[in-house]
Amino acid sequence: MKPKLEDVAKLANVSKTTVSRVLNNRGYLSQATIDKVNSAMKTLNYKPNTVARQLYKKQTHIIGLLFPTVANPFFGELVEALEIKLYNQGYKVIIGNYMNDPEKEMHYLDQLLSNQIDGLIVGTHNQNIKQYENAQLPIVAIDRIMNEDIPIIESDNYNGGKMATERLIQQGLTKILHLHGPTDLETPANRRKSAYVDTMNAHHLEPMCYEVDFSLNDINKKETFRQILKEYTEIEGIFVSNDIDAAMILQLAYEFGKKVPDNFKIIGYDGTQMMRNIQPDLTTIIQPIDDMATTALSVLTKRLMNDPTKNEYVLPVKLWEGTTG
Amino acid sequence: MKPKLEDVAKLANVSKTTVSRVLNNRGYLSQATIDKVNSAMKTLNYKPNTVARQLYKKQTHIIGLLFPTVANPFFGELVEALEIKLYNQGYKVIIGNYMNDPEKEMHYLDQLLSNQIDGLIVGTHNQNIKQYENAQLPIVAIDRIMNEDIPIIESDNYNGGKMATERLIQQGLTKILHLHGPTDLETPANRRKSAYVDTMNAHHLEPMCYEVDFSLNDINKKETFRQILKEYTEIEGIFVSNDIDAAMILQLAYEFGKKVPDNFKIIGYDGTQMMRNIQPDLTTIIQPIDDMATTALSVLTKRLMNDPTKNEYVLPVKLWEGTTG
Repeated sequence: MKPKLEDVAKLANVSKTTVSRVLNNRGYLSQATIDKVNSAMKTLNYKPNTVARQLYKKQTHIIGLLFPTVANPFFGELVEALEIKLYNQGYKVIIGNYMNDPEKEMHYLDQLLSNQIDGLIVGTHNQNIKQYENAQLPIVAIDRIMNEDIPIIESDNYNGGKMATERLIQQGLTKILHLHGPTDLETPANRRKSAYVDTMNAHHLEPMCYEVDFSLNDINKKETFRQILKEYTEIEGIFVSNDIDAAMILQLAYEFGKKVPDNFKIIGYDGTQMMRNIQPDLTTIIQPIDDMATTALSVLTKRLMNDPTKNEYVLPVKLWEGTTG
Repeated sequence: MKPKLEDVAKLANVSKTTVSRVLNNRGYLSQATIDKVNSAMKTLNYKPNTVARQLYKKQTHIIGLLFPTVANPFFGELVEALEIKLYNQGYKVIIGNYMNDPEKEMHYLDQLLSNQIDGLIVGTHNQNIKQYENAQLPIVAIDRIMNEDIPIIESDNYNGGKMATERLIQQGLTKILHLHGPTDLETPANRRKSAYVDTMNAHHLEPMCYEVDFSLNDINKKETFRQILKEYTEIEGIFVSNDIDAAMILQLAYEFGKKVPDNFKIIGYDGTQMMRNIQPDLTTIIQPIDDMATTALSVLTKRLMNDPTKNEYVLPVKLWEGTTG
């Protein structure tokens, strides 16, 4: 039988109110009491239910934003847009950067999900984080498939992948390589690859895919790109799943005698404001970052009010017609 | 005479403990009580002192990071480095983006400084935020001069400005323009401009400075850069105070028949990892972002322990030898 709040109180030899206070971190509590209650919960493997949490529940007006890294301009612009919109609705934000660090993500979640925040917007890449499964908190995912209870906000990855691939084919290319992130991640971004493969097949062209490991540091990444340019001598163009990698390859292409766009074409993905400012030549697919943030916030607000939401929100992408492809 | 906690309790007709609870947001409190106490504090213009706050003070293990915008890669990489290092010391971070929004900064501070965080790392650009003056909280500034009680972490802006200017002069340029941010901001970054002016004067060359407004949107900024390239026909090179602007000018230069580096040279500033990856041609001054984050954290830790700190920590910069200048 599932342990109850009463069982914890009994084992810890405290009142139910005290257990609730510990759960909700409210009221004066000695460290000894906190330790006793936590130890009893652990012994019984007690999972607080919503009622117990709401006995002393108070809004924190804090939303957690968990993303791989704000140092990447796509996430930087997304986190900035979310933070500004959340502020306008009276929320502050706690952030975490979780690139390849599932332990950190789990550790944060253990703390955040208890009672430090009102809700969560998650766009991390780590897999098998069990904490999301029974979370009692409103959660919205961006570009990440978590479970059927958590709505996803995404841009139209399939159409983006199709537009990029078709554009290269329309320019007469037949040997096109696609660089993408790890496909074992459950993200709608994988549909860019599916679209590339489908589009190539529809034109009776052979798809060539190359998976780039997220955990590569910048030096190893550059080396990987050099190897690709060296080995795939026959390719006439690359469709890259993000603009930073596309811009790095654009830089390296010259080393291998490739002239962009004369004998080699490159199309990126993301189309951040920053990239369009500093590298407007790079042809890319623009994700609607601001609309994604607005939608994520409106869906989170519905969740906070216990209003129904859809499972998936797909927003349109646009082509940025640069000169590289 | 300065109003005391007792005075607030008397006017609100509650106990001193209740006032302290409201101040520290601890224990069960009805909204009516909270409103009564807040109203009494406002009437008396009561400022909580440390003792009142510490009566119920508890560590939140949250640090606030206030920066202009994480969408700019310099701040994105800095905030990421700070967040990761703070996590490793057991802290979570609340962020705020305050580009040109002093009201938002003030509003956050009113809330954060009360008792939601243990400390603050600030790199915002807004002026005259009175809340910092008597803050009872450990604060560290990055690239911002606040007051003599708040230590500053910065890179060696003067030497960076000197290195950039001397490099252009050594390459035979005599007509060099310097683009910088608003000089009425109290930031050590202004020393880049001083160094430029001093270095030009030392070589008997005429300094030419142009101030770029931070509040320009991207379209207006691009238009401003076009105007500069159009009007300053005689200049042979530009030293720009940040890489994003430098990269935008590099893009626009071609429109005006300028060939970089043949008849026009550009040097930027910041040298983020991202820019060195995607635009390695851009000559720039590298700020030691990771060292700045490490130092900020070690100084903040000293403040949290009430250990003495220096007023200013200056870290060395490096030249990134690109091909643009």
